Amino acid sequence: MGQRSADKQGCCGAPIILQRAGELAEPVLRQQLAGLHPTLTVIAGYHMGWCDVDGKPTAARAGKGVCLALAVLAAEAVGASEEVALAGAAAVELVHVFTHMHDDIMDGDEQRRGRVSAWKAFGVGPTLLAGDAVLTAALRGLVEVGGQPGTRAIAEVLEMCEQLGFGQAQDLEFEQRPLLGPDAVDVAGYLAMAAAKTGALYAGASAVGAILAEASGQTVAALASAGRHLGLLAQIVDDVNGIWGDVKLTGKSIFSDLANRKKTLPVIAAVSSDRAVSRRLVELLSQPAGPEDDLEKLAALIAEAGGLDAAIAEAERHYCYVLDDLSRVVMPPGVRRELGELIEFIRHRRG
Amino acid sequence: MGQRSADKQGCCGAPIILQRAGELAEPVLRQQLAGLHPTLTVIAGYHMGWCDVDGKPTAARAGKGVCLALAVLAAEAVGASEEVALAGAAAVELVHVFTHMHDDIMDGDEQRRGRVSAWKAFGVGPTLLAGDAVLTAALRGLVEVGGQPGTRAIAEVLEMCEQLGFGQAQDLEFEQRPLLGPDAVDVAGYLAMAAAKTGALYAGASAVGAILAEASGQTVAALASAGRHLGLLAQIVDDVNGIWGDVKLTGKSIFSDLANRKKTLPVIAAVSSDRAVSRRLVELLSQPAGPEDDLEKLAALIAEAGGLDAAIAEAERHYCYVLDDLSRVVMPPGVRRELGELIEFIRHRRG
Repeated sequence: MGQRSADKQGCCGAPIILQRAGELAEPVLRQQLAGLHPTLTVIAGYHMGWCDVDGKPTAARAGKGVCLALAVLAAEAVGASEEVALAGAAAVELVHVFTHMHDDIMDGDEQRRGRVSAWKAFGVGPTLLAGDAVLTAALRGLVEVGGQPGTRAIAEVLEMCEQLGFGQAQDLEFEQRPLLGPDAVDVAGYLAMAAAKTGALYAGASAVGAILAEASGQTVAALASAGRHLGLLAQIVDDVNGIWGDVKLTGKSIFSDLANRKKTLPVIAAVSSDRAVSRRLVELLSQPAGPEDDLEKLAALIAEAGGLDAAIAEAERHYCYVLDDLSRVVMPPGVRRELGELIEFIRHRRG
Repeated sequence: MGQRSADKQGCCGAPIILQRAGELAEPVLRQQLAGLHPTLTVIAGYHMGWCDVDGKPTAARAGKGVCLALAVLAAEAVGASEEVALAGAAAVELVHVFTHMHDDIMDGDEQRRGRVSAWKAFGVGPTLLAGDAVLTAALRGLVEVGGQPGTRAIAEVLEMCEQLGFGQAQDLEFEQRPLLGPDAVDVAGYLAMAAAKTGALYAGASAVGAILAEASGQTVAALASAGRHLGLLAQIVDDVNGIWGDVKLTGKSIFSDLANRKKTLPVIAAVSSDRAVSRRLVELLSQPAGPEDDLEKLAALIAEAGGLDAAIAEAERHYCYVLDDLSRVVMPPGVRRELGELIEFIRHRRG
C-alpha cells in the first residue's frame, strides 16, 4: 500500500492533526467523564488509557482520536474554527468509547490497546454501566450547544448510534453463520456491516463537525460520505493488520482475529475464491479453534487464496471514493493537506 | 397501608389511566422497536412481553406503564391533550425498558415479570446491545418532536439517564458494603440511591409530559418533584413486596431479594435498629446465602426488628410529599382524580 511520507507528521509518524485535535478535546473529555459516579469515572478513565485500575494517572496511550480529528477538520473545511467542532468531536469520540467498552464485553475481547480490557479488569456489570454513562455524557455535551446546529448535531449522533447498533448486531450474527453455502457472509454483507460500524462512526464525526460549522446540506453530505468510505478503508486496514500486522502496534494478541475465527474481509474473500487452496482453508477454519492451531500457516493460506490482495483492492477502492468525495468540497488548502495526511496515515498504518 | 377503593378502576384493580396510556403508546413503542435490527427487535419485544423467544406474539403481560401514565397526566394537568405527551411518554418508557434490560444483566436477575429475563434467554451480549438500541430509539423519537419543547425534553431525558446511571452505580456499590459499621449503607444513602433510580424515572416522566405541553418552569418543577416522591414511594413498596408481597403478583421468585442479600430499605432499617433481634439478623444476613437459608424466618426477624414499620412510615412520608407537590399545581379535576387513583394504586399494590 505504498510508502508513507515522513514530512508534516508528528511523533511516531502520526499526522499533527491527531495531536492537535487530541489536545484540544482532552480537557472537555476529562471534564465530561469526571461528572459520572466515581466508580464509573475510573472505569471510563481506565478504558481511555488515562489511569490504572485504581484510578492512578498513567502514561498509557489513549486511542488514536481519528473521530476528533475528522470533526475538527470538517468544521475547518467550512471555514469555522476548531472550537466550533469541539462539542461534536467530543460527543462522537465518547460514543466511540462507549461502543468499544460494550463491544469488548460482547466479543469477549480481553485486550484493548495492549492492556487488559475494562470488563476483564472491572467486571461485566460495572463496565456495561460505565459504557451507558459515557453515552449519556456524550449526548449531554451536545445538548449544551443549543440552537439549530446543536439539535441537528444530536439528531446526527443518534442516527449514527442507531447504525452502530445495527452494525454490531450484524457482526454478532456473522459469528453464527457458516463459511460457505447460501447462509455464508459474502463480501457485500461484510461491507454493509463495516459501513454501519466504522463507516457510520467516521461519517458521523465528519457530519457533526460540518453541522456545527453550519455547512450546507450538500457539504455535510459530501463530508459524511468521505467519512463513511474512510471508515471502510480503516476497517479493512484493521482486518489486514489483525492477520499480518505488527503486534507491537496493534496491541492485540498475535493472530487473535484468526484464533477467534473472526469473519474479516480477507477471510471472507479467501474462502469464497475458487482456488483449490480455499477448500483447504475452509476445512481448517471450520474446525474449532485450539491451542495446536497453526495460525501462521492459516495466515499464509489466506494470502495464497487471494484474501490479502482482495482486501487491499477493496481498501484502495474506498480510498478513491474518499478522494472523490473530498474533491467536491471547496476548502482551504491547509485543511485539505491535513485531511490528506490523516487519510494516508489510516491507509498505511500497520497497527 | 389502608383499603384500596374499588371504583374508577380497570381490570385487576388497576386504574383506567394505565390502560389508557398503554393503549395510546403501544403503537408508537412497537413502531420504534420495529426499526431495530431484527434480532434486537425480538429481544426488546420479548422483554416487553409482546413475543416469545422466537418472536411469536404472546399474551404475556407487559410492564405496568406508570411512566406512560405520568407523562400523559402531566400534559393533561397543564391543559394539553394526551397526544402532546406521546413522544415523551414513549421515550421515558423506553429508557425504563433499557435500564431494566441492563440492570437484569448487572444484578444477575434471571426472572422478570414471571418469565426468564432477556439476558438469560438470549445471552448477555445480544441483550446488552438490544438495551443500547432501545435507548437510542427512545431519544430518536424525541428528536422528531423538534422545536424548543422537543429540545428541552431531550435535555430532561438525558439528565434523567445520567441520574439513573448514578443510582445504579450506587446500587452496585451497596452490594460490596457491610451491613453494619462506618461503611454500612444507612437510610439516607438508600434514599439518595432510590431518588436517583425510580425517583428520577418518575420525575422525568412527569417533567417531560409537562415540558411537551409547554408548562411554566414552576409547574414542571412541581410535577417533577411529585414524580420523584412517587418514585421513592413506589421503590419502597417494591422493597416491601419483595419480602412480604404476593409472589403471584411480583412475578419474582419467593424471597429473591433476601436470597440475594439485597440491601433494601426494610433490611437497612432493621439492622440499624437498636433492638436485640437486629444483632441476630446481622449474623444471619452476614452468612453467604445458601439453599438451607430459612428465608421465611429472616422475613419475620426483619419485621420484628422494625424494618417493615420503618419502611411503611418512610413510604407514607413520600406519599404526603406527592400530595403536597400536586396541591401546588392548578389542574382540571378529572386529571387530579386520575392522578390520585394512580398514586393510590402504587401505594397499595402487593405485586
